[in-house]
Amino acid sequence: MPLKKLGEDAFIKGLAERFKSRHPRLLKGIGDDTSVTAQAGGRALLATTDILVEGTHFRRDYTPAYLLGKKSLSVSLSDIAAMGGSPLFFLVSIALPPDIGKKFLDELYRGLADVSSRWGCRLAGGNTARTPDGIMVSTTVFGEAAEDEIVYRKGARSGDVIFVTGTLGSSALGLKVLGDHGPGSLKRGPYKGSVARHLDPEPRLKAGRALAESRLATAMMDISDGLALDLKRLCLESRKAAAVYLSSIPISEELKRYGEKTGRSPRLDFALTGGEDYELLFTSPEENIPRLSALSRKLSLPFTPIGKILSGRARRTVTVIGEDGSPFVLKRLGFEHF
Amino acid sequence: MPLKKLGEDAFIKGLAERFKSRHPRLLKGIGDDTSVTAQAGGRALLATTDILVEGTHFRRDYTPAYLLGKKSLSVSLSDIAAMGGSPLFFLVSIALPPDIGKKFLDELYRGLADVSSRWGCRLAGGNTARTPDGIMVSTTVFGEAAEDEIVYRKGARSGDVIFVTGTLGSSALGLKVLGDHGPGSLKRGPYKGSVARHLDPEPRLKAGRALAESRLATAMMDISDGLALDLKRLCLESRKAAAVYLSSIPISEELKRYGEKTGRSPRLDFALTGGEDYELLFTSPEENIPRLSALSRKLSLPFTPIGKILSGRARRTVTVIGEDGSPFVLKRLGFEHF
Repeated sequence: MPLKKLGEDAFIKGLAERFKSRHPRLLKGIGDDTSVTAQAGGRALLATTDILVEGTHFRRDYTPAYLLGKKSLSVSLSDIAAMGGSPLFFLVSIALPPDIGKKFLDELYRGLADVSSRWGCRLAGGNTARTPDGIMVSTTVFGEAAEDEIVYRKGARSGDVIFVTGTLGSSALGLKVLGDHGPGSLKRGPYKGSVARHLDPEPRLKAGRALAESRLATAMMDISDGLALDLKRLCLESRKAAAVYLSSIPISEELKRYGEKTGRSPRLDFALTGGEDYELLFTSPEENIPRLSALSRKLSLPFTPIGKILSGRARRTVTVIGEDGSPFVLKRLGFEHF
Repeated sequence: MPLKKLGEDAFIKGLAERFKSRHPRLLKGIGDDTSVTAQAGGRALLATTDILVEGTHFRRDYTPAYLLGKKSLSVSLSDIAAMGGSPLFFLVSIALPPDIGKKFLDELYRGLADVSSRWGCRLAGGNTARTPDGIMVSTTVFGEAAEDEIVYRKGARSGDVIFVTGTLGSSALGLKVLGDHGPGSLKRGPYKGSVARHLDPEPRLKAGRALAESRLATAMMDISDGLALDLKRLCLESRKAAAVYLSSIPISEELKRYGEKTGRSPRLDFALTGGEDYELLFTSPEENIPRLSALSRKLSLPFTPIGKILSGRARRTVTVIGEDGSPFVLKRLGFEHF
């Protein structure tokens, strides 16, 4: 079977099954945003790895090297955020074709360095390789958290409210605008904010830490492959189902305007199924809402309730309730890697 | 400047300079086989990352997927060995073009799983991506060691004897034979042992641990880019120079025979400048030779003295003494990544 049909979740599951990694210190292997390894003193080591591949995750002509450097580290930091951890160190592997110049590399470094110093995530090691043509940047970030503060995907309980931080779908809109109007759309035009969201996502580290420390979130993950697909993953890990109200999904003014102008549904076509939001998806019991509101204000980051966790006996893992109140079925859940 | 001219060491140096990573817990960042991070209880976390890129590090038609899986983990384990550490966990990123089938993937997994279980290095996380065409496997291995047992590149002292484990140059011969005679040369023909060394290297974890635990090695690294270039790196980190006796470099019977048959110098053309040996290069004071001989017998792995560490005031970092006793200059030190 070609991988296109196999799908990423099956692929990862195959890997997990092949290894059945059990070790008293490996608290979580495959199946969450990062691995979790017990350390001395009740602390746990979090580790996560990501790759950005030219032609798949970015186009060279649309992506300034500086922002490629920033994004390659930010996406891994987003995974640390999703566990409620603090980043410590990172390793980077940079694979480049021989025609790439020193200027490109300097800009890539500068982007990595800026994100590194902003979040206190220090460079611990590097590795370089030549490629026949494409650029590839792989980062591995390790962080830490108190063992009993880590928020896993598996903790959602029936009746919990589902929240997302920020707004969704802007990155998917930015990608579309880049494709339609080229790299100039980052600097000017009505959707430059969305293009910036796509090329330069912000890891929600402060929110992730605050939600973990305050013990307000029962389950958490970052949204990298689209809300629908990622919520399904959270539900499967928690052995629960979920209902999401389409009209509750928070979207930006730019995405709203784009929807009005083009007649496309901003929530259905972008916010629910677009990828690379790097916002946090988390669940919390209803009684926490006042404390969550206070925290959201303190962080200047919206926490928006978008649905409810249902018992695992529901017929469908994720049900979307449309603007007219009737449930419907999504044909395509989100961004699949194959 | 294109990277081809910049060279890998300059590239890594640029990265290190840009970051100047200092943190009380980061005992070693860039400049050794792994990063070293202090943990509680006098233990240190070791972390290293490697990428294998199709068209650069391997050819799809010459590399069984099973051996690609094995090698992608073994090369990172070799870095853990070079610090004297024990492996704990690994993360893997697999980037594949959409036409790759499930059988290839199963074989890749099987290779990873076999090396994983052999060395007790458990899978902690995985990540997948699509590529436009080439295959890429990136592994990050985490290991541990007692802080005071770690062997760095920087510890060599004037007068120390330079040793290598096993034999050198076989992997480079294997690569040449694969190029000349195709993938069948792994199964049959006079150089199949060398082809196997290239496609399926063995990380020297037992030797690395034993050398660290016994405190016999003053400096250590693995040989991945050729003896000449890697010894130069060890010398630069130790602020020393070195003399190597060409005739002392241990080579396999196959490589000897190849030299006799073709008239090429097996030590000069393969052992000194070939890449991917994944043997250990280490230094030790002369008085340790009896204990090293005993350890070598116990491990059934030759430790061969090949030269001496000289004071850093020597004119050249690495001087090679030819078979006639006169020193000479190498035009090309080893495998460069650009």
